[in-house]
Amino acid sequence: MTTVNRRKFIKGAAAGGLASTAVAAPAIAQSMPEVKWRLTASWPKSLDTLYGACENISKRVAELTDNKFQIQPFAAGEIVPALQVLDAVQNGTVECGHTALYYYFGKDDAFVFGSALPFGMNPRQQNAWLLHGGGQQLLNDFLKKYNAHFIPAGNTNCQMGGWFSKPIQKADDLKGLKFRLGGFAGKIMQKVGVIPQQIGAGDIYPALEKGTIDGAEWVGPYDDEKLGFVKVAKFYHYPGWWEPSSTGGFICSPEKLAALPKQYREALNSACAETNMWTASKYDAVNTPALKRLVGAGAQLTPYSPEVMDACYKAAQDLYTEINAKNPEFKKIYDSYTAFQNDSYLWTQVADHTMDAYMIRYRNAK
Amino acid sequence: MTTVNRRKFIKGAAAGGLASTAVAAPAIAQSMPEVKWRLTASWPKSLDTLYGACENISKRVAELTDNKFQIQPFAAGEIVPALQVLDAVQNGTVECGHTALYYYFGKDDAFVFGSALPFGMNPRQQNAWLLHGGGQQLLNDFLKKYNAHFIPAGNTNCQMGGWFSKPIQKADDLKGLKFRLGGFAGKIMQKVGVIPQQIGAGDIYPALEKGTIDGAEWVGPYDDEKLGFVKVAKFYHYPGWWEPSSTGGFICSPEKLAALPKQYREALNSACAETNMWTASKYDAVNTPALKRLVGAGAQLTPYSPEVMDACYKAAQDLYTEINAKNPEFKKIYDSYTAFQNDSYLWTQVADHTMDAYMIRYRNAK
Repeated sequence: MTTVNRRKFIKGAAAGGLASTAVAAPAIAQSMPEVKWRLTASWPKSLDTLYGACENISKRVAELTDNKFQIQPFAAGEIVPALQVLDAVQNGTVECGHTALYYYFGKDDAFVFGSALPFGMNPRQQNAWLLHGGGQQLLNDFLKKYNAHFIPAGNTNCQMGGWFSKPIQKADDLKGLKFRLGGFAGKIMQKVGVIPQQIGAGDIYPALEKGTIDGAEWVGPYDDEKLGFVKVAKFYHYPGWWEPSSTGGFICSPEKLAALPKQYREALNSACAETNMWTASKYDAVNTPALKRLVGAGAQLTPYSPEVMDACYKAAQDLYTEINAKNPEFKKIYDSYTAFQNDSYLWTQVADHTMDAYMIRYRNAK
Repeated sequence: MTTVNRRKFIKGAAAGGLASTAVAAPAIAQSMPEVKWRLTASWPKSLDTLYGACENISKRVAELTDNKFQIQPFAAGEIVPALQVLDAVQNGTVECGHTALYYYFGKDDAFVFGSALPFGMNPRQQNAWLLHGGGQQLLNDFLKKYNAHFIPAGNTNCQMGGWFSKPIQKADDLKGLKFRLGGFAGKIMQKVGVIPQQIGAGDIYPALEKGTIDGAEWVGPYDDEKLGFVKVAKFYHYPGWWEPSSTGGFICSPEKLAALPKQYREALNSACAETNMWTASKYDAVNTPALKRLVGAGAQLTPYSPEVMDACYKAAQDLYTEINAKNPEFKKIYDSYTAFQNDSYLWTQVADHTMDAYMIRYRNAK
């Protein structure tokens, strides 16, 4: 695109009265109050992408406030366990946390919209819905009764579909499969015959090695590589349809947020917004070399077959129908989310997807 | 993904000595200096997405500095014409601007990497390269001699491929075609026989209507709709391979940036980073309903044929070979850019593209 608009050209405006002066001395105020918050994360420090998001928020908030507003991040387990971040914020143990809201689906299935809906939106769509489609507001209305305020602050992008010792080719291959995966998607997996396994990070590898589980999903190439799965389960399935986009959420107490000086509140909003893209871009930058290393180490990249995808898609829709029938808060957000998603794919499929498809075909043909 | 890490659980940490206090009084400093900058944009106010990016940067910088750092945006032509933003920054007419760096390819073809390379990276890849692949640094090294510093601050996402009264089906259809398009891509178009036309926004519609040009590209559904092309040229081609991602750039004088109080400099960095995603998400949110309206008004969505795409792709590679042979600064950035892009598509094609392809197929089958 090129814009040429000379009509309003104001000749000589450069010499006009609006010239400004840069100020050299960083005369930052003594009177900006010191505020210290603690952030409890759902991530161990070894997940340097997601824990890195917490460190980045902390760093940027400090830089934006002349170090007066300090948020100290703590890894999972240092203050509370990984899955108790919401509770710790809700009951005031800490001022804030960084988590994936779908961890709390046991309290209410509506939490999933804050991070990832199986067969839901892709990262760009999810950001558009959160920022410009009313999504963040809907989630914050829902979160009021948990005394929590949510700001998107990181994204893993579409995740991988897990590691298996045998490829999953037919829908029947899912029956009786002991598959380690997190949370809400287990409800869908059960409908197609999988026996979901909840196992913490450190215990997955030995379980795969011993054969007490048949497969395991974690995140994507960069994070998965650290857990060593490729040594014991070669078939690396994709896509992770349960997380087409997975938003990491900064949460804090609405009261504590309101009590901040306005400038600090805006610093926090900016730091989270900046971190939302910083984290997603970091994942893109580090996943590529990790994927190459994994393939070099013997990973067999294997798409889920259309039959397997279709069985899971149908099971997901059945589950959403059931939840919508009994949970009006879920339905309220679901209706907004799916309307936005359905429309969005109309646009996604035109310019962007066609361009990517061409570049991928061309690259593979070289 | 679910992380359960109870090993490091520190029981009772909540009651420990790290508890913090929220501060209610927004006691913002008197001593933060007032700084006023003028921003000249390459956009008219009617482009509320791109001009909106300028307004958003201004708004966020003010909010992050208690209104002490004020950036006043001016539309194209109010201070200098649309395509003289770089010059206005370089010679000190204004402190900063918002533009697309490829407008300045006449000075040096290397400018294109700051906004869009034909058949280049998609938006996520470009952000990953800029933020985590050394791209922004490379561009700023290059920009030193233009007395300009670049911060990514907006993205249109993949653009559309233009409006035509007849569909472009064969490579031969390009020969002699009078096509209005902006800048650098015209060099590629000439290689395939197109006669590129440089026409400002307001003059495109009458030229299309009178038939003095055969086609015209602008941006995408939302921006194109405003210019009314659908009434005179029904065939809406895609993708706009000359802009698979198009970054809007905030530019300012490095000296004036260095002279800012550190906190203001960080506010500017955050505001631009936030606006980078805000603008791209806004485009996603508004393009979808615009596309529906355009199709309702008679637009015939028409993909460029593989033959046409291949002819243009080959012409682009030929052009890059020619420029690389004589322009070492272009080649330095090109080598970094294309290495990153080539690797990135390895990852793009696996989880994300496969997931999108499934959702698009499913949506269309409904």
